[in-house]
Amino acid sequence: MDASLLPFFRPSGVVIVGASHEPSKLGHGVARNLVASGYRGAIHLVNPRGGRLLDRPVCTEVALVPDPADLAILIVPAPAVPDALRACALRGIRNAIVTSGGFREAGPEGTALEEECARVARECGVRLLGPNCIGVLDTHLPLDTTFLQPPGPLSGCVAFISHSGAMCAVVAEQARSLGLGISRMVSLGNQADVTETELLPLVAEDPHTRVLTLFLEGVSDGRRFVEETRRIARQKPIVVLKAGRSAGGQRAAASHTGALAGQEAAYDAAFHRAGVIRARTVEEMLEWARALEWCPLPAGRAMAVLTNAGGPGVMAADALEACGLPLAELQEATQAALRDLLPAAASVRNPVDILASASPELYAACLRLLLDDPGVHGALVMLPPPPMHLAGSVAEALVPVVQASAKPVMVVLMGGDSMRDATERLRAARIPDHLSPESAAAALAALAGHAEALGRCEQPPAVFDDLGPEAVREVVREVIRDAVRGAAGGHPADGAHSGGTWLTNDTAGRVLAAYGIPVSRSGRARSADEAAALASQMGFPVALKVASPQIPHKSDVGGVMLDLADAAAVASGFAAMLARVRSARPEAKIEGVFVQRMLPAGCDVIVGAVADPQFGPLMMFGSGGVEVEGLRDTAFALAPLSRPDADTLLASTWAGRRLRGYRSLPPADRAAVVEVVLRLAQLAADFPDLAEIEINPLRALPDGQGAVAVDVRIVVRRG
Amino acid sequence: MDASLLPFFRPSGVVIVGASHEPSKLGHGVARNLVASGYRGAIHLVNPRGGRLLDRPVCTEVALVPDPADLAILIVPAPAVPDALRACALRGIRNAIVTSGGFREAGPEGTALEEECARVARECGVRLLGPNCIGVLDTHLPLDTTFLQPPGPLSGCVAFISHSGAMCAVVAEQARSLGLGISRMVSLGNQADVTETELLPLVAEDPHTRVLTLFLEGVSDGRRFVEETRRIARQKPIVVLKAGRSAGGQRAAASHTGALAGQEAAYDAAFHRAGVIRARTVEEMLEWARALEWCPLPAGRAMAVLTNAGGPGVMAADALEACGLPLAELQEATQAALRDLLPAAASVRNPVDILASASPELYAACLRLLLDDPGVHGALVMLPPPPMHLAGSVAEALVPVVQASAKPVMVVLMGGDSMRDATERLRAARIPDHLSPESAAAALAALAGHAEALGRCEQPPAVFDDLGPEAVREVVREVIRDAVRGAAGGHPADGAHSGGTWLTNDTAGRVLAAYGIPVSRSGRARSADEAAALASQMGFPVALKVASPQIPHKSDVGGVMLDLADAAAVASGFAAMLARVRSARPEAKIEGVFVQRMLPAGCDVIVGAVADPQFGPLMMFGSGGVEVEGLRDTAFALAPLSRPDADTLLASTWAGRRLRGYRSLPPADRAAVVEVVLRLAQLAADFPDLAEIEINPLRALPDGQGAVAVDVRIVVRRG
Repeated sequence: MDASLLPFFRPSGVVIVGASHEPSKLGHGVARNLVASGYRGAIHLVNPRGGRLLDRPVCTEVALVPDPADLAILIVPAPAVPDALRACALRGIRNAIVTSGGFREAGPEGTALEEECARVARECGVRLLGPNCIGVLDTHLPLDTTFLQPPGPLSGCVAFISHSGAMCAVVAEQARSLGLGISRMVSLGNQADVTETELLPLVAEDPHTRVLTLFLEGVSDGRRFVEETRRIARQKPIVVLKAGRSAGGQRAAASHTGALAGQEAAYDAAFHRAGVIRARTVEEMLEWARALEWCPLPAGRAMAVLTNAGGPGVMAADALEACGLPLAELQEATQAALRDLLPAAASVRNPVDILASASPELYAACLRLLLDDPGVHGALVMLPPPPMHLAGSVAEALVPVVQASAKPVMVVLMGGDSMRDATERLRAARIPDHLSPESAAAALAALAGHAEALGRCEQPPAVFDDLGPEAVREVVREVIRDAVRGAAGGHPADGAHSGGTWLTNDTAGRVLAAYGIPVSRSGRARSADEAAALASQMGFPVALKVASPQIPHKSDVGGVMLDLADAAAVASGFAAMLARVRSARPEAKIEGVFVQRMLPAGCDVIVGAVADPQFGPLMMFGSGGVEVEGLRDTAFALAPLSRPDADTLLASTWAGRRLRGYRSLPPADRAAVVEVVLRLAQLAADFPDLAEIEINPLRALPDGQGAVAVDVRIVVRRG
Repeated sequence: MDASLLPFFRPSGVVIVGASHEPSKLGHGVARNLVASGYRGAIHLVNPRGGRLLDRPVCTEVALVPDPADLAILIVPAPAVPDALRACALRGIRNAIVTSGGFREAGPEGTALEEECARVARECGVRLLGPNCIGVLDTHLPLDTTFLQPPGPLSGCVAFISHSGAMCAVVAEQARSLGLGISRMVSLGNQADVTETELLPLVAEDPHTRVLTLFLEGVSDGRRFVEETRRIARQKPIVVLKAGRSAGGQRAAASHTGALAGQEAAYDAAFHRAGVIRARTVEEMLEWARALEWCPLPAGRAMAVLTNAGGPGVMAADALEACGLPLAELQEATQAALRDLLPAAASVRNPVDILASASPELYAACLRLLLDDPGVHGALVMLPPPPMHLAGSVAEALVPVVQASAKPVMVVLMGGDSMRDATERLRAARIPDHLSPESAAAALAALAGHAEALGRCEQPPAVFDDLGPEAVREVVREVIRDAVRGAAGGHPADGAHSGGTWLTNDTAGRVLAAYGIPVSRSGRARSADEAAALASQMGFPVALKVASPQIPHKSDVGGVMLDLADAAAVASGFAAMLARVRSARPEAKIEGVFVQRMLPAGCDVIVGAVADPQFGPLMMFGSGGVEVEGLRDTAFALAPLSRPDADTLLASTWAGRRLRGYRSLPPADRAAVVEVVLRLAQLAADFPDLAEIEINPLRALPDGQGAVAVDVRIVVRRG
């Protein structure tokens, strides 16, 4: 943690530069909130007009502010901010919150002004939060530098860090609606200096904060973000709402992996790796944070449903299943005990339906039995308006049972005004209430997901001791040298594509081989005779593939022929293919034809890696072939990978699942595929210059016989 | 509409049998609600104890009830219900709501009692609603036969029909929370007599009802349900919440189509065909009903976003895109007009960000510009707590703009208590308010979906004039005759599978050919020589496939060989295949081997149909081959189909999309595939006895060359 940031949360004296006498101005709101917050340090108001404000004297300039003063809030017109920053530095204030807007968000002039602020701050040794932010808030210190309309958030144990100031106002109000208290809140604004990743440790170390929530529009340093959140999430759960899914778009790319690895896939993989939980809505973010703060983590995913009516019970079962939470199979003893308590028409199988007449005591007794069943990892209690009892009484009876258990319980109060009393009783006991089974199930799933992420983060990445990084380094050096030479010579390098250079097939094969990935036997022929001779040497049948660095998708131009059975077929195929390819791509430089021994039948998959500009090496696995972008049976993960990570990656796709065999497809050598995935992940992690690597297909041979890269493409980033 | 059901909603006198003096009893609640509802007909209370209740005399028996009396509510112990029904009939009452529980839901004895009730009702000419229901409620008549806790639902224009009584209580309260009024509410209970489908027209014809909502746990007569809802939905939108997704499970089936066509796929297809909107949660059902009642339908899917802050604007864009609603491209004139109104830092491109300082007047003026843009079909207004104005004032300014427009507008009030005033102003003007952009976008999507469904329902099914139903009828008759003979002979029919008989390949081919579906040339050989001769006659290469009605999945047992190039290969292949199949399935009766001319390369797809027990012929289309159940690139639709239906079915899968060509895959004869889908749908619709039909693969040849069924399986239901 960076000590220079400490005064943002532990200032001994706060100066408001631009405190306004005019109640409709934001500069008034900031002063009002700071005074009302109960902040116990010194408060200094600065306004050239002087006078008194909120029963306090107003200084006419920053230089006149008495000690102690170590945090300034600037809410003056944008063009005045650089000078105000200098004045603060002169006065010895090293931390400034720039609340003012009118910077980068307002066009080129604002951008220039923002850059000036950053420069001034750097030169003067001032840490700057903002501009265009609403500051920080700590309900325990207490401290409030925002202009949020009162009453502000409840005090509690959930922190919120946000790129958007408006979302701070939203979260303050919506958290209050959920009975959820906030510990610290930070608005980052344009991040001219301080970023979300720098602030994270400062918020995480706050002893009052038990759960962190983030609203992100991006991250400023992907790898450091993953490192920091991964470290923090082991102690304190992190729930992220990342906006801008739709703006993600596709990146310019030449491989399938590159085309499919959109920004959102990278974010999802990064959050997965960090053990950060990604919510899709504000409601989810806050409800999940509440569950993580209030509930114990479940030991598994099997849930029990307790209901007083059939329809709501079925809905609860649907909602749980949709979240990947199966209904627990109740032990015979549990069912027998329930049968003893319940009327004959009740259902003692999960969902347990104790009928509309159920008393508060019956609800409580049945919930206790369910939570005592070792096969039950958590429970969802459905409470539609009970016709014969008060919902509040039922809630009251449930409280001690939930509190006595080490398993999470959500209560669904499916109603409106008649539920208010129940809501209050549950919240007072820190038991989450939900309006719908769907949101309750999603919160239980977030708990289960966090428990699993904690386990996952313990797994070390796979390690290999037979790698040949030197050989790869040499190839990369060669390519970069050639590219530089090409650029110097003024003509484009062979196989150029935006941002990189394609390796030829044989060079790419060398790279894989250096990392212990088996590559199918192949050689390059420059004439029909040479091709026939090579084929005869390898054994038939063979495949022919055109060799041209400018043609990454060979089959698109007729550059692939399969199953050629003898030398004559190879020779005539060679001629026919060259004619086809030349007419389709007259500008491409053709370096001959690859002759490849055809492999035994097996399961073909795609394994790829791209160097994500934010998060580094991003792995893809899935159904390969030419249709990979259409079929979209692919999954992503951030490298390096542990073996369980690789297993999860395979299991997320049909391509991976069918490796275990399916109907007439025999089991393939799944272990060998995992090995290739792990080695490729290591390769991608070791060589960030390999911008895109794609094995398509990787053929998984029958079990025990390995997996072989049939075709591989590698793009090396230019020097 | 069935006139015998009318008294449920227009009774001239209501008798409560089992009206209780005890306030904690449901029999008291029913009397309390009926009296409090303001029902203007006669109210008669019956209880053997007599006396007075709620200031009214209590009759000691039904026989003594004076005129008028045409609807009875029975809330007596279950065993007393049959006699009570008889007493009602004797008194001339022909409609009874049986509120009492303790019937089918309570086990075998209860089931017997319920059957007795149904019999008594039938014999006495009484229409029975329930048992185990909470009756009916009409806020306009008014009438309330339920025991819902006061205050009950608001009066309005949305009807609710429910299999679950508890969901009536939930909907009454949650609709009130949304400011949504209810017209009629019906609880169906166990449906011993009256079903949801019978009641639908009665509720739909109510002039106060403008939108129908349904909570279903199933449907009692699938085809009639589709017919009725399809007719009603053209006049009044229908939103359905169907519970029991997870319980759907897989049916016993021998074809891929059968295995994949779970109950839920059939429900989705049925709702799609009927133009019914399926919600996943109570919130969605009510919010969408509110939107359908309050808003005009959009002419398209392009939406505008108006926001006063960047973060919420991005969230709105994400939410719209996730619902299939693209951001509208604003006309240059609109952008220019916005630019004139807004400060420089604002964004005049969609999402339009008018900054935190935006006044109510600015919000209104900008919304007017957006709604006037012809490329905008609707709008989503984001309102996080505005720092300098009251949310209520913004809402007030928006109202006349929204009301003057023929486009739907949702307002997202992202906050808590500070939004209450805004909520009330919007609702008073019938403008939907939402807590999150996600729920607002989903409601807009429901409006767009309903508008599209209205268009879809106008399309007639495709009609063919070259079909040969007689030939099919003959095959079916033959099979049923054989099956009956087989059963009579005491041994299982050839090719038996649960519920049907497999047709042999050649018979199945005959069936397709009769409906004008091209089938690949093939013949059956009983010896290696015969196979070689057949192949030489057809031309090479050929495929061999084992002919055995007991082996539906031939490749699973090595019963398929491809690409045999000459007579010698065919002859030796014949012998090898028989040996393999006999060792894998010694019990199977092998009737020889099919010899099939191999077709030119093309795109293989699967087209199937199953006779759904609820909804009739259900079509499947998608990626075929052996992996169809793993890959799950399939979509379903209810037969018969219109051409646009078939187009939608194809477009829902990658298999269908790639027919237009993809990279090296040339465009296939998509029109021929549509033709096969339509003809197969007609076949399935014409012959309900064809329990499963599956063409796998159907090979789509290059564009203009047609599509050919390569392999087909048909199961005929046994007689």
